[in-house]
Amino acid sequence: MEEIKVGLLGFGTIGAGVVKLLKENSALLTEKTGTRISLKTIVDLDITTDRGVCTEGITLSRNADDVLTDPEISVVIELIGGYEPARSFALKAIGNGKHVVTANKALLAVHGEEIYAAAKKNNVEVLFEAAVGGGIPVLSAIKGNMAGNRFSTVLGIVNGTCNYILTRMTQEGADFAEVLKSAQELGYAEADPTFDIEGVDTAHKLCLLLSLCFGTKIDLKDVYSEGITSITSEDVDFAHTFGYRIKLLAIGKMDGGQIEARVHPTMIPIDYPLADVHGVFNAIRLTGDFVGPVMFYGRGAGMEATASAVVGDVVDLARNLCAGITRRCSPLGFLDDKVTTLPIKPIGEIVNKYYIRFQALDRPGVLARIAGALGARGISIASMLQSARSADEVPIVITTHDAREEDVRKALAEIDTFEVIRSKSTYIRIEDNLE
Amino acid sequence: MEEIKVGLLGFGTIGAGVVKLLKENSALLTEKTGTRISLKTIVDLDITTDRGVCTEGITLSRNADDVLTDPEISVVIELIGGYEPARSFALKAIGNGKHVVTANKALLAVHGEEIYAAAKKNNVEVLFEAAVGGGIPVLSAIKGNMAGNRFSTVLGIVNGTCNYILTRMTQEGADFAEVLKSAQELGYAEADPTFDIEGVDTAHKLCLLLSLCFGTKIDLKDVYSEGITSITSEDVDFAHTFGYRIKLLAIGKMDGGQIEARVHPTMIPIDYPLADVHGVFNAIRLTGDFVGPVMFYGRGAGMEATASAVVGDVVDLARNLCAGITRRCSPLGFLDDKVTTLPIKPIGEIVNKYYIRFQALDRPGVLARIAGALGARGISIASMLQSARSADEVPIVITTHDAREEDVRKALAEIDTFEVIRSKSTYIRIEDNLE
Repeated sequence: MEEIKVGLLGFGTIGAGVVKLLKENSALLTEKTGTRISLKTIVDLDITTDRGVCTEGITLSRNADDVLTDPEISVVIELIGGYEPARSFALKAIGNGKHVVTANKALLAVHGEEIYAAAKKNNVEVLFEAAVGGGIPVLSAIKGNMAGNRFSTVLGIVNGTCNYILTRMTQEGADFAEVLKSAQELGYAEADPTFDIEGVDTAHKLCLLLSLCFGTKIDLKDVYSEGITSITSEDVDFAHTFGYRIKLLAIGKMDGGQIEARVHPTMIPIDYPLADVHGVFNAIRLTGDFVGPVMFYGRGAGMEATASAVVGDVVDLARNLCAGITRRCSPLGFLDDKVTTLPIKPIGEIVNKYYIRFQALDRPGVLARIAGALGARGISIASMLQSARSADEVPIVITTHDAREEDVRKALAEIDTFEVIRSKSTYIRIEDNLE
Repeated sequence: MEEIKVGLLGFGTIGAGVVKLLKENSALLTEKTGTRISLKTIVDLDITTDRGVCTEGITLSRNADDVLTDPEISVVIELIGGYEPARSFALKAIGNGKHVVTANKALLAVHGEEIYAAAKKNNVEVLFEAAVGGGIPVLSAIKGNMAGNRFSTVLGIVNGTCNYILTRMTQEGADFAEVLKSAQELGYAEADPTFDIEGVDTAHKLCLLLSLCFGTKIDLKDVYSEGITSITSEDVDFAHTFGYRIKLLAIGKMDGGQIEARVHPTMIPIDYPLADVHGVFNAIRLTGDFVGPVMFYGRGAGMEATASAVVGDVVDLARNLCAGITRRCSPLGFLDDKVTTLPIKPIGEIVNKYYIRFQALDRPGVLARIAGALGARGISIASMLQSARSADEVPIVITTHDAREEDVRKALAEIDTFEVIRSKSTYIRIEDNLE
């Protein structure tokens, strides 16, 4: 095949990166695929702003149909983001027999089933390496060379904004609100950062990781999701005292046929490689029954890193097209009819160690009452720390041995009714028992 | 395709892992490939020893031809290791139209060109993910999703034995010889550890990484290689004082059309993720022009992890065979006729920072003479440390700014003639300027 024509929907930051890569490394791509990968048309509502990349020889259009109905275009790169019109465009591209490459985790986490089914029906491919971990080629590895493994655990630091904020809170002892403000000024957080800081973006990515690791459909609604907005600099300090760092983790585990699917701030030991993932970097750590623990680390976002993953998918497609085949591997790595729907373990039933922070009046017997309420629910204390008194109110911090989430919640609800407790008690799950 | 029949040459540790994986995860492999991957025949000189894995239904033979000439077998897994008879067997398999999966870095580093040419001629594939980094799927990622990048640097901790020894030297302050002895007793080092501790195994793996990153043939003879036998516990201590850890690194760099290809003990900053790769774990860090820095981390050796990579290659082949194609991607990721022979930069011309340790008599003017000899070669000192005197002889340790290797060698040759210098001065290269 002499040439493969590509259409691009969405000329934002990543789109500009893709244009740049396809232009600058065009010869390299030919050396690796044997074909010319040529970007024919870019569609965006704004086709006048200069993105700082050369678009010579590329048609710029405001009309998606200029890509979606162009019979010359065999590969559509969707970088619009969000649910609509991304969903309609992807389905139309598929319906017209075009392969789709997308970085859109929101789209796939919510409408993946519909899109994969349409792709199967139309015998085209849907590739989405860039949807998780930016440039890190983790999805390809799960579907590809690690395919022989049954995975037991996947942990991911997959949201650069949250990791940037937590890193600065850790390094500077700063508070969440002030770091968020600064991150927004520096462009590391959106003007409306809700999707990032509330863990929604991380939950989207977890859905994709779970589908690939376990060959299961995941309903985003079933993913427990908690953001980083309630993390205080005090928690960061106490974490350090206990030998932990706080990271927003996507956590997926296979537990006796049930799947744990949860996103929340997590304390991990300082000497775990994941604890050293700083700033906007991402990392994904998987455990397979044969490969054991494997970690992938790299830039989780940004114009160029994400473009690397997008173009990597285009290379994959180009090699298939040159070989005259399609769907050599299905979107989730499992044959479509082998994808099941595994049950999700309710969050109340998960078992973790916990860090719990109480804000209490400094009165005799407070500790005994807290310990008693925890003990009555079978929650056993591993360590305890009461800060030097600076006022009448003191933070009391404990870590627990393994406890059931539901029991912890009930115990805290009871403890919070004590008149000596001055504000709602908070807790952070601890993950320190990885193989 | 209903079934793909596989033959295994070499029933050692990794071979047993492959048998175990193909047996235990057989159903999973079918769910991911749509075909049954069935191990028909195992060949080994020893077919009586119990390897602790079930071989029911598999033919065991001492005759390689039972695999190499069996028309039913389409995939041959070569796990004999070493040059011969592995080379002859691989070539015969290829000549008979069989695809080859191998973990044999020595074979490919030395005879790769011959084997790739034979594979091209016979239209079969040669896959070797397990040859570098055990279970870590780094080669697939370079050839696959990261294919759009021009790489500038590849750094690897790819020899578990060396990393285990250096880790224990660091953690225990122990000497090389005593840790090596203990490593041998524990099975982490071979009875004859030469290939590992002299850096030869690491150089083999570097050859493969360079070929895939840069699309070039590499002659093993051109790879500068230096092992860890001369590292002392004193060096480990001084490294710590300067904020470094010592790792045996495979280093590949693209430098203006020339390639740096070298293996040597290297000081890296303690806060680099690579510095946290402990024990028998491996890690490979690459920098691509778009993806930026990416690191892969996992088990670099062992029965099960390596089997994961071997079977991953078999899955790749199975997907091709089911699609009715072959050589969708050539062995090095670049089309065969695009693989070039880039020049290797002579070791004398590389530029590094250096750690240098002198053993000198404690006399006035020694430092001035050392500094003078270095300065005369344009080598500028970044930091200096003279230990508290415990005898008439003292170690003097310096780190330099960027200097040319040849200049450092000449300066040390001169300094070593000074009568106050009591033994050969040693140096370790520093790598602390990574993007």
